[in-house]
Parts: sequence; structure tokens; C-alpha cells
Amino acid sequence: MCIMNFKRLEHTLGKLNTFSKQGQGINRLAYTDEERQATQYIIDLCEKEGMEVNVDTVGNVIARRKGTNSALPAVACGSHIDSVYEAGKYDGTVGVVAALEVIRSLNDDNIRTEHPIEMIVFACEESARFGFSTLGSKAMAGLLKKEDITNLKDKQGISIQREFSKYGLNVNEIKEAERSKEVFKVFLELHIEQGPVLEKEGKQIGIVTGIAGPTRFKLQIQGQASHSGSTPMNYRKDAFLGAAEIALTLEEAAQSEASRGTVATVGVCDVNPGAMNIVPGMVEMGIDIRGISIESREVVIKELYHAMQRIEKQRELKMSIIKLNDEAPVKMDENMIDSIKETCEQYGNTYTLMPSGAGHDVMNMAQLSPSVLFFIPSRNGLSHNPEEYTSLEHIAMGAFLLKEEILKHAKVSQKLVR
Amino acid sequence: MCIMNFKRLEHTLGKLNTFSKQGQGINRLAYTDEERQATQYIIDLCEKEGMEVNVDTVGNVIARRKGTNSALPAVACGSHIDSVYEAGKYDGTVGVVAALEVIRSLNDDNIRTEHPIEMIVFACEESARFGFSTLGSKAMAGLLKKEDITNLKDKQGISIQREFSKYGLNVNEIKEAERSKEVFKVFLELHIEQGPVLEKEGKQIGIVTGIAGPTRFKLQIQGQASHSGSTPMNYRKDAFLGAAEIALTLEEAAQSEASRGTVATVGVCDVNPGAMNIVPGMVEMGIDIRGISIESREVVIKELYHAMQRIEKQRELKMSIIKLNDEAPVKMDENMIDSIKETCEQYGNTYTLMPSGAGHDVMNMAQLSPSVLFFIPSRNGLSHNPEEYTSLEHIAMGAFLLKEEILKHAKVSQKLVR
Repeated sequence: MCIMNFKRLEHTLGKLNTFSKQGQGINRLAYTDEERQATQYIIDLCEKEGMEVNVDTVGNVIARRKGTNSALPAVACGSHIDSVYEAGKYDGTVGVVAALEVIRSLNDDNIRTEHPIEMIVFACEESARFGFSTLGSKAMAGLLKKEDITNLKDKQGISIQREFSKYGLNVNEIKEAERSKEVFKVFLELHIEQGPVLEKEGKQIGIVTGIAGPTRFKLQIQGQASHSGSTPMNYRKDAFLGAAEIALTLEEAAQSEASRGTVATVGVCDVNPGAMNIVPGMVEMGIDIRGISIESREVVIKELYHAMQRIEKQRELKMSIIKLNDEAPVKMDENMIDSIKETCEQYGNTYTLMPSGAGHDVMNMAQLSPSVLFFIPSRNGLSHNPEEYTSLEHIAMGAFLLKEEILKHAKVSQKLVR
Repeated sequence: MCIMNFKRLEHTLGKLNTFSKQGQGINRLAYTDEERQATQYIIDLCEKEGMEVNVDTVGNVIARRKGTNSALPAVACGSHIDSVYEAGKYDGTVGVVAALEVIRSLNDDNIRTEHPIEMIVFACEESARFGFSTLGSKAMAGLLKKEDITNLKDKQGISIQREFSKYGLNVNEIKEAERSKEVFKVFLELHIEQGPVLEKEGKQIGIVTGIAGPTRFKLQIQGQASHSGSTPMNYRKDAFLGAAEIALTLEEAAQSEASRGTVATVGVCDVNPGAMNIVPGMVEMGIDIRGISIESREVVIKELYHAMQRIEKQRELKMSIIKLNDEAPVKMDENMIDSIKETCEQYGNTYTLMPSGAGHDVMNMAQLSPSVLFFIPSRNGLSHNPEEYTSLEHIAMGAFLLKEEILKHAKVSQKLVR
């Protein structure tokens, strides 16, 4: 029992990562040809394993392995395969190929379970392309309204509506992707840590207690474009210098909230018109503030608002801010956490309990069913980076744990001896 | 005598500004279809006035009106018609259409001069497209080496070499654009101020005593891209925060040198990879530092270097800086300054002596011949901006002054009474 083929897993992961637009890293952004082709590759593999596969109206893939009792709710697991720009090979993909390997190994061993097992590949987990994250799991959990996404456009101005049409999906039928609580028994997500904690602490598994939902803002700063040579310093309304002050103030505010785990990031800063000899007239910033404590996150957000008022006045700038999204921290299921702890102890895997600074599809699935997330280490804590790396040994450990937990919840009903 | 047709000037200026790529302002960047078409429009008008027109190997237009004594050196004037991104309608163009109106009015009145008169339209004055300014006048003054420009590319990665070929110009024949001191008697440039001084002081004409040459840098800051949610603040190597500190330090340094007129600008800041949920891993900044005092400019540059060292260490970033160009301040000719002062006094125009914070083609032409630059006011000091505005009244005043000065230097030899 529990014989898994990690060479096969490694091969599937390698093949999956050939679906990428050229670049320094992986570029398989949501609703692009590369991502949709990769999705089809996974669908084909699932069908080969005898699973029933459906793609819902937002592009989530739901692959189902029948249980012996068709009346029982599903034990579900999954992750995503879309990526950020210049991404690594492991973020999301590990959870998908590990789930597939669980199914394959059950088939190899002719193990049947009472509960059906579902493997889900969520669409558009990353916000990189459309500034909107975990779109697929939000739709599945009934947390998505049509108005949330109809006006989304990528950097090139391509609308999400156009991409939906291109791939046979439908913005008007979002509600059809919604599923009910009754169909799930539990949901499990295996993911790489994307941070340095496990490596620093020398642990193999991170069992996540809660997920910090991000609050995101778009901040537009309006100054006055003018000639860089002939505008004396004291007559300037330099939008970029306002942006610089905002970024440093945010850093300071997050640092003073470090003990409560809150982080703040300016990942986007577009300077207009963007020429050497023009004082910047307008800047658009993307701000991401996260914490597992709502109170702490609010402290940083208040600091942002105060800084805006102060800098607007001092520099004679005009700032306008839009809150793009605001997700509450989500707790993971305590029984499932205890179950993973037990399994780790049983097999001698070291683990730590930790929060997740990154958002994941599991936080939406937690609205539908008891859910849990667990991590395997990322080398140097790197993720969203071409140098992202998790060893096959750690992936195997995660996949093994995933299989053990799935079998606990899905209950082995019979094993056919060959 | 001295009857000029300012309605005609206004019409030509309006027509010239129809050559622009669509945008909020004027977009007629160096070596684009729009700029080359505008150049052809001016060539046609010059030929209609009986001038002999040549385009040199870098795209400068030299239109010559014969003098009665062909052995005498030319009285030259001119400016440019290329623009920055989202520019105004007056920067450069005013000096060109005013020069053309001088020629037209001389023809109207059948006025011949002893010296030939040259009207020059300089190519690629603005650095906006290729990060290299006053290319045409540098080539003419023998200040341009082939190596200075062969590797230049615009934001889209299009090389200047490709554009040269496209428009029948030749990077390998730069030296053929060079001209000797003997061919010029004087050079005059009329330009809008592009700053707030004339308006603030309530003067009509700014007579420029010297031009602050810019020192320009490209600064690359290398940090470490990482996940914005799962990288604690103290483990980050955020390249953008390093850039923010550099920009604010530069501002402070320039402010403390304000009495000596030095200014510093970060007009370009490209954040990579540029996504909401990734801590910036790399930033490229464009820095422009100018002063009429070399010593003062060096103070600011030293501050930049100190800040780089400090921030590299504190934030564990790696910075590399390239000096793109470094132009010395240039003095204008004292006799020509006195001559303009006299003319202003004669006609009751108010004027002030002032430095020019912006670079102009005249600073290169000053290597070939006694030269002068004079300004007319810019409303609100705005330039390099769609809202740039100079009234027709002020343009007429500048064109009139240009004609008076040209006639003084070129010497009227005969006037045919009709």
C-alpha cells in the first residue's frame, strides 16, 4: 500500500512546465493559450485515469474518481496551474501533479474508496494578469459576482470578457460554477511555502492555521509634468517623489507591525510620462497589504491614509485610491490540522504550525467545507521567481501526506489483490 | 520694413502640429514617420521660398537663402521639431516657424542681405526616444562619435540604426554632417522658456547667459523578487524601496543646491517584474542632474554616489550606474547678448538675463560660432506637457526680435521697391 511513483510525478511536472511563453522563467498567465493548453494536458491525463472531467463556466477543471457509495460527498483536493510573470515551476503545479499522482497510485494498486475523490484545477488563482486573484475558487464558493470581473483588463488592455469568449467560457454564466456545501466532505491543498520559514526552522511540513487575506489598492498620484531642466525644485509637483514617500511610509508601518505578521508591498509603480527630461506628472501604484490579524492590517491601512493626506498637502499632489479587494483572514479546520499532525508524527516528518502570508484557493473552499492547507519548503524562501525550487524529496513527502489524508477521509472500501 | 505676417506664422505652426501620433498631447518623436513627414513639410515650404535645401546624414535640414556676397559666412538660426512623449505645441517648433516667417517676410519685402541666411531644423533634439539629446547639432558641431549612438534603442527595442536606414540616413556617415567654423558668422535660437521665470518676473524676453548641460545616469538596482504575502519584511530585498530612497535623497541634495540653480530629476523608474503580489526584484531608473555651476552639480552627484553605497549596504541590494552623458555648461556670446538687449530697449520690450536650465541645440552650435539663445514666456512655466502654451503675441515678439537680429548680422544690401 501507498506505493507512489515519484519519477512519474517528476515527469508530469516537467511536461506541464513546457507550457509557458518564452522568458526567463515560467509565463503561463491566466486565460492565455499556454495556460489553456496546459489545462488540456491535465484533463487528458485525468481521463486516461478513468476520471470523469468537467470544465465549469469560469474554467475550473473538476476531475472525479467515483466512490463505491455514490451518495457520499467528495473528498476534494487541488491547486492551480496558472502563473505570475517570470514565475517558477512549483507554485500551484505541485498541488496539482501530487493530486494526480495520488489518483494514479490508487489506480495502480486497485484501491477503491467509499467517498468519491475530486481533483480540482482552479482557474486564475494568480492576480498577475487581471489584478484579481483566486477567481476560480471564488466562483465555485459563490463568492464571485459578475460585476467583480466584467471590467477587468490586462496590461495590454485585453478584457477578461474577450478571453472568456475565446476559450468558450462565459462571464454571464458565473453562477453556474457555484457548488453547494453538500457535495464536499473536506478539501485539502498542498502547496510550496513561498517563504523562508520552513527552511529557516529546518522543518519538512508547514501545517497552516490560517490564511492572511490581502487588501489591495490602486493609488493614482496626480502631479504636474514639467521640464526637468527648467523647473526649479521648489516649483515642482513631482508625482514620483510622492510615490516614493508612500512606499517608504508603508514599509515603516508594516515593519512596526512585524510581530503580528503584517506585510505591505508596492509591486507596481508606473511613472508617466516616463522620460529622462520630464518631471513625472502622474504615477499609478499597486499596493498589497496582508495580515492574519485584521486589527494589525487596519493599523497599516490607516498609516497609508494618513501619509496620503500629509504628502498631498506638502507636495501639492492629488491622490485617489481605489480598494481593489479586501479579503478577511480565513482559519483552517482544526480537526484536519490535528489529523495531519498525527500523520506527520506517525511517519516521523518534522512539522510546524504556521500562518500563510499568501492567499490560496483553499481560503475560498473553506466556505464550502472543512479545509486545510499544508506546505513543503521553498529553497531560500523564493517564489514568484524563476529560481523558485522545491526538491523532489520534499514534493514526494507532500504527495505522500496528501494521499494518506485523502485515504483517511475517503475511506478505503476495498483493495483488489492482483 | 519689418512687416511680418503673424497669421501666416500661426497657420504654419498649426499645420506643423498636425504631424503627431495620437495621444493627449503632441507625439512627434525623433526618427518616426510623424517627425519625418513634418520635416518634409518644412522642406517644401522652404523650397517654395526659393531656398536651397539639404538634408545631412543625420537628418538635419539646412535651408539656405543666398546672400549678395557668396563669399561671406552665413547668419544661421534654427531649432527643432521633434518632441517628447505627450508634448506641447511650442517647444522647438516656435524657433523653426519664426525663422521661416523671417525668410518669408524678407521675400515679401524683396530684401536682400549681404550674408547668406541659414535656417536649420536640427534632428533628434529631444532625448525622449533614444535617451540621447541634441543629436543633430552635436553631429554638425563635430561632437558626435559613431560609437555614441550605434547601440541606442528606444523603449520598444527598436534601434536607431534601423530608423536611420529607414529614412535614408546613415550612422556610418555621421562625420559628413560635420561643418566648419568658417561657414558661420553667428547662430541664433529662439525658444520658449519651458520654465516659470519670465511669467513670475513679468518679462517678455529672456536673454540667456549660459546653458546648464545635463549629466544623465541609468541606475540599475538589483534586489530579489519574492512573494509579497509570504516574505516577512525583514527578509526582503526590495529594489523599489531602494529606488524610492535614491529619488528622495537626490531631491534633498538638489534642494540644498537650489541657490546655485542645480536640479535633479528621476523621470524614469521601471519596476520589475511589476505585479501586485511580487516584491520588486529589479528597478531601472533614469536620473537627470543639471546645473550652470559644475561644482554644484558635482555636489549632487557625490550625494548620489554616497546614497547608493549606503542603501546597497542597508538593503542588501546591488546597484550599477552608467553615466549616459555629461555636458558642460555653455556660455552665450556677450556681444550678441548686448545686441539683443539694445534691440529690446529700442522697441520697449522688457527683458531679463537668465540661465537656461534646459539644454538646446545652441549649446553645440556655440562650438562653431558666436551664438545666443533667447526665450519667450511659457504659461505657468509648463513645457513637455500637452498644456504648454505661449501666446501668439509673445511668439510675434520673438519672431520680430529674431528678424531684427538676423538683419543686423546679415546686413541689408538692397531693398527693391515694388
